[in-house]
Amino acid sequence: MTATDETIRATIETYVDRVAHGSAEEIIALFAPGATVEDPVGSEVRTTPEQIREFYATLEGLEQEGRLLTTRIAAGEAAFCFELVTRAGDQTYTLAPIDVMTFDDDGRITSMRAFWGATDMQVS
Amino acid sequence: MTATDETIRATIETYVDRVAHGSAEEIIALFAPGATVEDPVGSEVRTTPEQIREFYATLEGLEQEGRLLTTRIAAGEAAFCFELVTRAGDQTYTLAPIDVMTFDDDGRITSMRAFWGATDMQVS
Repeated sequence: MTATDETIRATIETYVDRVAHGSAEEIIALFAPGATVEDPVGSEVRTTPEQIREFYATLEGLEQEGRLLTTRIAAGEAAFCFELVTRAGDQTYTLAPIDVMTFDDDGRITSMRAFWGATDMQVS
Repeated sequence: MTATDETIRATIETYVDRVAHGSAEEIIALFAPGATVEDPVGSEVRTTPEQIREFYATLEGLEQEGRLLTTRIAAGEAAFCFELVTRAGDQTYTLAPIDVMTFDDDGRITSMRAFWGATDMQVS
């Protein structure tokens, strides 16, 4: 049976929290076997656990805050906008992508596609 | 060549404006031949111009305001959140879906998928 909206919402909230503060392993744990990651949309799709782990490992140890802004769930899929603020030295990088995800019946992520472009990154 | 971000953004802005104020024909004019519409995600995909026209015709003549909230464009695709406020008698219906669209090289819409659920419709 398709995962409920509540289950999917919980996965998304945990995902945003772990992208900001978690380890690559903790993020990977939210994905189903065979999951794919395309971030940003148009880049090469990551199809193996190693490629996905490598991608999220780049976020580890950064000083970040994550905030879920808007979530829309329909029929076991979801689109959501979240803001990720990263501080590095005197610079603050703010990016608010719209992610589109599909989920398996247990609410684990089966695919993630992140919509954002270079002009969406704000540096202050 | 993939449509530029500017061309795609213009299509999206025109789309939101016409969904609020335009005729079904004016909305249909933004779509490429063979385009598909799935609104909401999980419903039957409309694959013919007649089905798509019928869908948008239901919006004609309504007292509506549309507002584009967030737009993210990547590699000829886009995800955007927009708010549609409809007044009918004493009731106001507010819905802010996240739409995901693909575009042809001329910036015409080749597919639209709207993410929203029944609980996202606010009545006041």
